[in-house]
This record gives sequence, C-alpha cells and structure tokens, in this order.
Amino acid sequence: MNDQLTQTIIKMAKAAKVASYQMSLVSTKDKNMALLKMAKALIANQKYLISENKKDLAAAQKENYSKALIDRLTLNEKTIKGMAQCLVETAGLKDPVGELLRTIKRPNGLLIKKVRTPIGVVGIIYESRPNVTSDCIGLCLKSSNAVILKGGREAFYSNNAIFTVLKNVLKKTKISAEAIQLVGVTDREAVNILLKQDEFVDVIVPRGGEDLIRFVVENSTIPVIKHAKGLCTIYVSDKADLKMAEKICFNAKVQKPGVCNAMETMLVNAKVAKRFLPLMIKEFHAAGVEVRGCERTRTILKGHVKQATDQDFDTEFLDLILAVKVIDSLKDAIDHINTHGSHHSDAIVTKDKKEAEAFLKSVDSASLYVNASTRFTDGYEFGFGAEVGISTDKLHARGPMGLEELTTYKYLVYGKGQIRT
Amino acid sequence: MNDQLTQTIIKMAKAAKVASYQMSLVSTKDKNMALLKMAKALIANQKYLISENKKDLAAAQKENYSKALIDRLTLNEKTIKGMAQCLVETAGLKDPVGELLRTIKRPNGLLIKKVRTPIGVVGIIYESRPNVTSDCIGLCLKSSNAVILKGGREAFYSNNAIFTVLKNVLKKTKISAEAIQLVGVTDREAVNILLKQDEFVDVIVPRGGEDLIRFVVENSTIPVIKHAKGLCTIYVSDKADLKMAEKICFNAKVQKPGVCNAMETMLVNAKVAKRFLPLMIKEFHAAGVEVRGCERTRTILKGHVKQATDQDFDTEFLDLILAVKVIDSLKDAIDHINTHGSHHSDAIVTKDKKEAEAFLKSVDSASLYVNASTRFTDGYEFGFGAEVGISTDKLHARGPMGLEELTTYKYLVYGKGQIRT
Repeated sequence: MNDQLTQTIIKMAKAAKVASYQMSLVSTKDKNMALLKMAKALIANQKYLISENKKDLAAAQKENYSKALIDRLTLNEKTIKGMAQCLVETAGLKDPVGELLRTIKRPNGLLIKKVRTPIGVVGIIYESRPNVTSDCIGLCLKSSNAVILKGGREAFYSNNAIFTVLKNVLKKTKISAEAIQLVGVTDREAVNILLKQDEFVDVIVPRGGEDLIRFVVENSTIPVIKHAKGLCTIYVSDKADLKMAEKICFNAKVQKPGVCNAMETMLVNAKVAKRFLPLMIKEFHAAGVEVRGCERTRTILKGHVKQATDQDFDTEFLDLILAVKVIDSLKDAIDHINTHGSHHSDAIVTKDKKEAEAFLKSVDSASLYVNASTRFTDGYEFGFGAEVGISTDKLHARGPMGLEELTTYKYLVYGKGQIRT
Repeated sequence: MNDQLTQTIIKMAKAAKVASYQMSLVSTKDKNMALLKMAKALIANQKYLISENKKDLAAAQKENYSKALIDRLTLNEKTIKGMAQCLVETAGLKDPVGELLRTIKRPNGLLIKKVRTPIGVVGIIYESRPNVTSDCIGLCLKSSNAVILKGGREAFYSNNAIFTVLKNVLKKTKISAEAIQLVGVTDREAVNILLKQDEFVDVIVPRGGEDLIRFVVENSTIPVIKHAKGLCTIYVSDKADLKMAEKICFNAKVQKPGVCNAMETMLVNAKVAKRFLPLMIKEFHAAGVEVRGCERTRTILKGHVKQATDQDFDTEFLDLILAVKVIDSLKDAIDHINTHGSHHSDAIVTKDKKEAEAFLKSVDSASLYVNASTRFTDGYEFGFGAEVGISTDKLHARGPMGLEELTTYKYLVYGKGQIRT
C-alpha cells in the first residue's frame, strides 16, 4: 500500500474519531445554526461552485459520459438552491440524539434507560451526484456524527469545492471542523485504505454501482450498510383492478426510469394476461419502453415484443426497458421476487385483502406495496425528510436511511451500589 | 478452496434460505411447541449427550487444555438441564415477529406500517461451550430465523450430538428441519467458505477469542455482528462513596473473573487514592488478585504491587489480574475509557449527579453504570431473557443480543392506486 496515502487517511480517521466525541456534546441549537449558515454559504458561493463544477463537466464530456450521468453531475443555480434547501430542511428535523427509547426497572432496583446516541464516525463512499456531499454532511452533523466522505473521480472538483465551502463555515462555529473530512484524491487505493480503519470508523455506507458495492463488501473490515441496486417488481394479480394496475405499472416504469425504486420486472397472472397485456404494452411502447417478454407474453402479443433472456429477469435496467413474465399464481410471484429481486421495493396489485397480506408476509423486501407504485420508497415520501440513501441491507437500517438510522443506542444503568451475587 | 466442502456449504446455505422463507409463516404456537419438545428431548437423551461429550473431554485432556476451558466444555446432568431450561424459557418469551413498530399516514393517503420481521438466515460461529448450540437454535427458531451453526473443534462431538437430537425433534414438527444446520467439520476452511455465502446468509455472529473475531471480520462478505472482548473499566471518582466503590470494584473483579463484563481496569481519582487504594488492594490481594499499578499507584502502595505496563491497560485478562491507574479528573477517565476500553461495559462510582451524567454522555460504550457493578450486562439481568451473546458492535445490536435483536423490519405500504407525480 501507498505509505503516505495510508498515513494521511489514518490521520483523517483519527481526527474524525476525536471530533465525534466532541460532537456528542454539541447542542441541537448549535447544530442547527451551523446547518443554516452552511445553506447560506452554498448560495453565496455559487459562482465558485459552478466554475469548479465546469472542470468536472469538461472532463466528463471528454470521456463521453452518458447524458444521464452528465445531468446528475451538473451544478447550476437550481441544483445549488436544492442543496441549500436540503440543509435548511435537515435543520428543521427533530434531533434524534438523546431520545429515550425504553425504560426498564429491575427487581434489584437497577434503573436501565436505553437512549439514542450518535454512531460515531460514518464513512460514505459515493459516485457522481455532488449534492450527496452537502446532503450527507448535513445529515451526519444533525445526528451528531463525524463524517468521512469519499466521492467519485468524476465529481472531484465539485465535491472539493462544496466541501471547502462547508468546512470554512464550520471553522466559525462551535462544532469542530474535523467533524467533516473529505478524502480528496481520486485513487481507488484510498478507498481500500479507508475500509481498513475499523479502529476509528464505525460504519461505511457505499452508494453506487455494483462494482463499487462489491469492492467495498469484499475489502471492508468496517461494518457496511449497502445502498445497492433496486430490482423492483410489480405483480398484477388475477384479482387486480386492471385499470389501476395499468396506471401503477406505467408510473413505476416510466416516471423516472433511472432510479432505484423504478419497476424493472412486471409479473402478470395468466388469468388476466390476455386482457391486461395488449393495452399495457401498447402504452409502454408509446412511451418508448422496450419490452422484453417471456414465451407466454410473446404468444399473447403475437411476437410484438423482444424475447426476454434469463438474465433480463436479474437485471436492474435503470432505463426504459422492462422484463415481463406471465405466471400462474401468487406463490410463483413470491418465489420469483424472492429469488430474482433485490429486496428493495416490490408491489402487488390486487383487490383481495387475504392475497395482499400473504404477499406482504412472504416477500422478503424492505418496502412492499399493495395497490401503489414502487416509486414511493424515498425518505421524503415516507415522511422522514432527507436521507443518506436507501439501504438494501437488512441490518440496522433497511429502506430509507435518514437521521434515526444514523444513530445507535446505549444502555444507561443507574444503581445504588448493586453488586451481582 | 476445497471444492467438495464448498459445495456442501453452499447446499446448506441454500437450504437454510429456503427454510427461512417457510419460517416466516410458522405460528408462535408451533414454534413454542417445537421448543418444548426439544427441551424434553435433551433430557431424554442425556446419556447419549454425556457419552459424546466424553470424547471431547478426552481430547481436551490429551491436549492439556486449561481447567477453565474444560469446565466450559463439560456436559453433565446439571448443564443439560440448564440447556433444556433455556429452551423452555425461550418458548415463554414474547414472539417478536409481526410487532407493529410504527404507523405513518401520508397526505396522499398511503398508509405505511413498519413491522418487525425475521432477519432470515443467521450464521453463528462460536467456541467451546456446547450449550451455545441449543441456546442459539432456540432463539433463532423463536424469532423465525433459520440458523447455520459452526462450533469449535474442541466441542465437535458434543455439538454434533446436541444438534442431532434437536434436528430429529424438528423432523416431527411443522417446522422445516432445514431451518437448523450445523457445519459438522473441524476445518477452518469451512468458516472461510461460510463467510462468503452473502447470497444466502444475512448475518454472521462470531463469538470467541480475538483471533476468531479478526478472522471473521477480515474474511466475511456477510454483515457481521461482533461478540468480541470486554475490557471493562470502573472509575472511582473523588466524589464517590468509597465504601460503595470498594464493594462494586471487588464484585466486578472477583465474582466471576473469566467473563466479558468483569472489570479489567480500575481508575481512581488522585484526591481519594490515598484513602481508597490501601484497603481496596488489601482486599484484592486477599482474594488472590494480582494487581498491576501505575507509578502513582505504586508510590501510594509503597511498591507492594507490580508495575503495570502500557499493554496492561489494553488487555482483557479474563483472570484474577487487575490494572490500576491513578488519574486527575473525570475528563481523564472518559479519555482513558474511550481510548483503551472495548466499549462493552464501564462504570463510574460517584455521588455527584452532574458528574454521572457527563460520564454517561461522553463515554462511548454499550452499557454504562452509575454506582453499580459492570457484571450486570447480560440478557437475563436486563430482563430480556436468553441471549445470543453481548454485541460489542454499534450497528443493529449493541449490548445483550436477544430475540428482538434477531429481527429486522420491513415497510408495508397500503395504497388505493397512488402513483408518483
């Protein structure tokens, strides 16, 4: 390993740890004031941010990045206003730290309080969107955590600029400026070194493509909360209101196809497939969706759709592409989703309450919908406010990961000299 | 890697995953009935269990294992009765699965229920004590999880025997016998293979020495909840009731020195050290405790204790050995514990409530005590019942890990055709 880089990152992680202990003593008022000042500073420095962002955009164009990626990378007045707004909203959220979760009185007189506390040092590894830099700084500070950020190469200048603006604000507040850290190098070795700092870093949150997630999972000695893919499925039951199913499936596929809660696979019960599919697929085609169907789908549609491969049912397209399968039962739907889905968000459209409950009980996903679009899996839509992302893990945080999920707890035990006998 | 072993373990993990989906549908009554039958079967088969255990004991004696280890390994009528009792108690605990944790109504009419669900497949890797085999099977089944166990080489015959008895019971119940699995080989390669089955296993719980924990953390691609060391510290403040401090410190060190919640380091405020230390150390010496003191401790005790090395303050002795340091302030105590402790259980003895609150707020440990012995960190003592162990991690489960900590949650979203705009 690169010795100098290792030393730099260890120093950073140690400083973050020390700052995290100070963070646990900062008042809600002081945290909120810092967030509001940060929001103002982003707006005040927008010319600087946009000019630094142009360097990233120039490089992206040179490397022929996709339009979608360039969109995500772009900073302008509107996106900067959005970042500032997120900090203001985070300031307005309830402070989770110190919340009393449970009180236990024991026969021996011990009083046990379970209270919510910060996690400590949160490492976030992410790709493209520079707004993640300020969103995550805001959420981590509000939950009294120190944070170490490692953004993607493609947003190098933008992330550094946002970070510099926010760090300068912090220097003028009661919060230690060491509470926020940015690994400002593009080297992937830096990620690998960071992933080994289990003495100082309490959790790693990777947000990005499958390669990044896999790299983190295979190399981290720090606990990881994955923000991986969303292969979301909707099952149209034979007991569905087909008009409703049509609207829901169209929305889940078309409204914003590049996001993790968009539908990638549509399962249709054979009993209604002949009625449901022709019109539905016509709508999809009109919206520019490429439909890839199973044999039975193709028979019903007389070959007017592409043949789906096995792999299509395991793919998060993040695009106007949809895999469609005709199946025979609720059980087949449950088995298909548990086997091929990514346990993110899945839905059933049915009028039968018993069937809905069986689906909810048996499908092993973070968010399950009855008669609604999967597109609602999101911190704001759930009423939690801003989020670090959508966890696809089962431990600690599942689904939208907001302020509460950035906390842990400890047990405070009050005694009067009790000893164990 | 060993191909045949790999295939065996993948098959086991897959079978556990399939069983875990069935488990989520088993009723509380059926789970409890299975646990009670298991308890009876342990008692009915005690001769077989004891005779298999003798094979392990013979090997242990041949390898000159310590008396403490042989004690932990031994099965007899009393320990088997204890194992059966644990299963009966687990049957009596409230079923955590299905608990409604939160209800959210959204302005768009969506109704969101956050409900407690099983984790799925739990992998437990442990050393010596064979009772862990039946305790963990009981807790995982009660929380509707499938479980894969990998016990230590030293308890090979005992673990296999307990497992066989319990598996035979399961075959005659409504629960799939595949819900419990034992990796019945002594090869450490088996652990390494198991740690890579992230497609099927949802969490790994390692219980054991530092080597085992380190091996798991470095090789697992599955999320890990560590059950590592307890380097517990008690700070005797200058505002302490010294009589109370004496009792608490004596209890925390002497009552059961080989456990993770025993005191390993004692910090004493300089203002009371001259009054407190001589009598306290006399008591420790009388109980056979080897005291290793800092320079100031030795000056006060006129050299009647060994010199502590730096390493002594980073050591979990698990024995009648204690490191003692004289310090100047609450701040020094907090810094010492946060730096040298293992974030398991720490205590302050003080009559000053403000000082106590500052300690509770600033020390970053799972369980913190005011005026009580650290020995109470334990699922039973907290009123949770049986436990998989004491987590030294911060994510998902911190401190005693019982039934609730063996669950996760999912969001059930009920709509009437809502789509995102």
